[in-house]
Amino acid sequence: MTRRRLHLNAFLMNTGHHEASWRLPESDPYAHVELGHYVRLARIAERGTFDSLFLADGPQLWSNFAQRPAGALEPLTLLTALATATEHIGLIATASTSYNSPYNLARKFASLDIISGGRAGWNIVTTAGAEAARNFGLDAEPAHAERYARAAEFLDVALKLWDSWEDDAIVADKAAGVWGDDTKIHPPRHRGKYFGVEGALNVPRSPQGYPLLVQAGSSKDGKAFAARYAEAVFTAQQTLKDAQDFYADLKSLTAAAGRNPDHIKVLPGIVPVIGSTQAEARANEQVLEDHIVYTHGVARLESLLQLPAGTLELDGLLPADLPPESSIEGARSRYTLVVELARRERLTVRQLIGRLGGGRGHLTFTGTPEQVADAIEEWFTLGAADGFNIMPAVLPSGLDAFVDHVVPILRTRGLLRTAYDGTGSEGTELEGAGGTGRPRQTLRERYGLPRPANQYVTPAPGSPALARV
Amino acid sequence: MTRRRLHLNAFLMNTGHHEASWRLPESDPYAHVELGHYVRLARIAERGTFDSLFLADGPQLWSNFAQRPAGALEPLTLLTALATATEHIGLIATASTSYNSPYNLARKFASLDIISGGRAGWNIVTTAGAEAARNFGLDAEPAHAERYARAAEFLDVALKLWDSWEDDAIVADKAAGVWGDDTKIHPPRHRGKYFGVEGALNVPRSPQGYPLLVQAGSSKDGKAFAARYAEAVFTAQQTLKDAQDFYADLKSLTAAAGRNPDHIKVLPGIVPVIGSTQAEARANEQVLEDHIVYTHGVARLESLLQLPAGTLELDGLLPADLPPESSIEGARSRYTLVVELARRERLTVRQLIGRLGGGRGHLTFTGTPEQVADAIEEWFTLGAADGFNIMPAVLPSGLDAFVDHVVPILRTRGLLRTAYDGTGSEGTELEGAGGTGRPRQTLRERYGLPRPANQYVTPAPGSPALARV
Repeated sequence: MTRRRLHLNAFLMNTGHHEASWRLPESDPYAHVELGHYVRLARIAERGTFDSLFLADGPQLWSNFAQRPAGALEPLTLLTALATATEHIGLIATASTSYNSPYNLARKFASLDIISGGRAGWNIVTTAGAEAARNFGLDAEPAHAERYARAAEFLDVALKLWDSWEDDAIVADKAAGVWGDDTKIHPPRHRGKYFGVEGALNVPRSPQGYPLLVQAGSSKDGKAFAARYAEAVFTAQQTLKDAQDFYADLKSLTAAAGRNPDHIKVLPGIVPVIGSTQAEARANEQVLEDHIVYTHGVARLESLLQLPAGTLELDGLLPADLPPESSIEGARSRYTLVVELARRERLTVRQLIGRLGGGRGHLTFTGTPEQVADAIEEWFTLGAADGFNIMPAVLPSGLDAFVDHVVPILRTRGLLRTAYDGTGSEGTELEGAGGTGRPRQTLRERYGLPRPANQYVTPAPGSPALARV
Repeated sequence: MTRRRLHLNAFLMNTGHHEASWRLPESDPYAHVELGHYVRLARIAERGTFDSLFLADGPQLWSNFAQRPAGALEPLTLLTALATATEHIGLIATASTSYNSPYNLARKFASLDIISGGRAGWNIVTTAGAEAARNFGLDAEPAHAERYARAAEFLDVALKLWDSWEDDAIVADKAAGVWGDDTKIHPPRHRGKYFGVEGALNVPRSPQGYPLLVQAGSSKDGKAFAARYAEAVFTAQQTLKDAQDFYADLKSLTAAAGRNPDHIKVLPGIVPVIGSTQAEARANEQVLEDHIVYTHGVARLESLLQLPAGTLELDGLLPADLPPESSIEGARSRYTLVVELARRERLTVRQLIGRLGGGRGHLTFTGTPEQVADAIEEWFTLGAADGFNIMPAVLPSGLDAFVDHVVPILRTRGLLRTAYDGTGSEGTELEGAGGTGRPRQTLRERYGLPRPANQYVTPAPGSPALARV
């Protein structure tokens, strides 16, 4: 068996994950709509042999327009442009199951997977918040459980669509005038509670079969959904213990759902703030905190905690009588994380905003490259992570620093690949693709996952069992 | 005033517009899902200084899967990839107003417009056919008039979304910590019959303000829609007289709708089949006709004419008692064109299929490069066209032949540009963009159209009147 390797995803967000990053002299406040900025970031990540890069998304303009970069290039569009500017790195786009139709979205991901040579991934979100709902004809967001029920049906339909062409449905017999084999086309004929989708997709089955399925909700509904569908999970965890518990829980839920727990990769988010000494790293962090506008932070925190404006005092603690998670219809797991962080460390509102300003609840590792690598190795080897979602506080400099200084240490320790592999190097046999001459690994191969079997095809007797991811 | 120039659009469709093109020895039957094929086509069109290229679309798998290439890369995705492989050419994607939501689609077009540096166009379709409807939870297609009513509301909302950021909404004052100016954001707050869209777009206003608006329906509803919204119109016309009538009618409807009739460009589709002699051109055409499978053609014609299977005889004429156009819920103007073509020229079903096999109702010009250029010049100078939608029967060879042999003649005659211009060369003042240093023309500038004013901004007193396109 090949040695277990760390998986790294670069979470790209305009000038960086720290809310004040755009105010630094080095930052371009228009970066969020500049293709060149993202091409540069993608190439840095590829230099660091990251598995993938990732774009978050919500179909609404955030209300803090005045305070920080708002708006963005639509993720699937931007990642398609990045596909042509990169060679190896996986391309994970966020898209909502609440505000898309399965036929349209399945087509777009299949198209990106073909164009990128098998590098597409889908971060499946249900999209919390009334602002998004009101852009799609609704008065309020659908209830949490309702969103997840729709997401599950969405996935079932999308999987049928992606399987609606068998891999060898194209015959291309010019002499006979026969282009395709009708018997290898499988219309979903789906009629469910949320969707009716009769016909087959109008895109052939893509190199990966379908995009890598990624998920990031850590609520009870979110974990159940991940256990059933997800192949990679982004999560916000503040302590090693919490991360270990989450990791063990998710692997066990996945096994209970009848899937191989190795086929779900857990990637906690970390915000690395690096300096050549610990003092320098801390000074870098202080520069960012000095640029936070705290009045804005208070307003956002009140909104997250669903408190009336003016409730929180900057140098006080959170109120003791906050509502329970179950009463929250928005981003549940984020709510709980923030409340628990504040209580565990007895943070004032000001301190809490400083902590959240960097990673919005994700763990900030501040230190030397060795210290950051140590923390990564500890989490990776102690059952807390299969890899990490790297969220630089400032972009591009923070990603450059990670690739220049932390990646070499991880490679020296044998934790991270030193170059991208050609095909199927991580013990994964690429079903049906031997001999197609595809020169590079797909995203799913890079994560050590099998190419999914087609649900409409019965494996030939004697062929290896094909795991349904 | 600058000399009036011809506008050329390249309509790209896998191995070509002739239904039998995929069977030729030169053709790649997998071309429809190969990015390299489309990159090659786009670069040929750019060598020919075409204004734009265009991809048709329908959200369903065509039923003649066995007979000819089916499925395709989703147009917005493919054009985004082509944006990075080209420098000048416009990128026009078809997208449906019946099966998209305005917020999602407006974002994607704004993103493509930004990524391409102002080269995006939208071919607005209402999508005929029950097959598409059944992929989106409906049992049958919405009625023709209903589809157009939804399209009009869709456009109104999309225009509000594209105008929801003023061009200078981003302040980027790092010292003050102020990124955006809230007063320059204009949420649509739209509540209509078909859509509710409350909030502003989450993409800034793009280089062109919004994509070039293109339309291709030539029914009564289609022309009324075009007169109100379209800046370019694709149309199928079989005779000079019909094309002149359509041209005059559309310009007059546009003026009656309160718009400048120069701000709608009429582009009939033509299928050029070229040979160095007329006999060679005709022989090239014959090769294609020899590859048609006529039994398939009969079935498709019966479907278009809404006749029971087995009604048509290959060597007979069309029945005399076909239903009137007004009873057709599908592609109305195509229906009438086909019936009139067959009757005018007394074509047998076999002959009609041969004619439709090339351009599906668009005019085929078969001849030498001089003859093709003569026909183009005649239509252009006699009030039948502002340019042409070039639909090569075979791709890439037919596009190569047009660019190598017809384009030089058009240039010698002063009808076509010899190179792409930098900025604003065709008498168009680019509103508000002087001094931004944008090096290339936008698609709208290339078509000689003004950048649209923002509906939420009152022009300053004394500034030139800003035409609402």
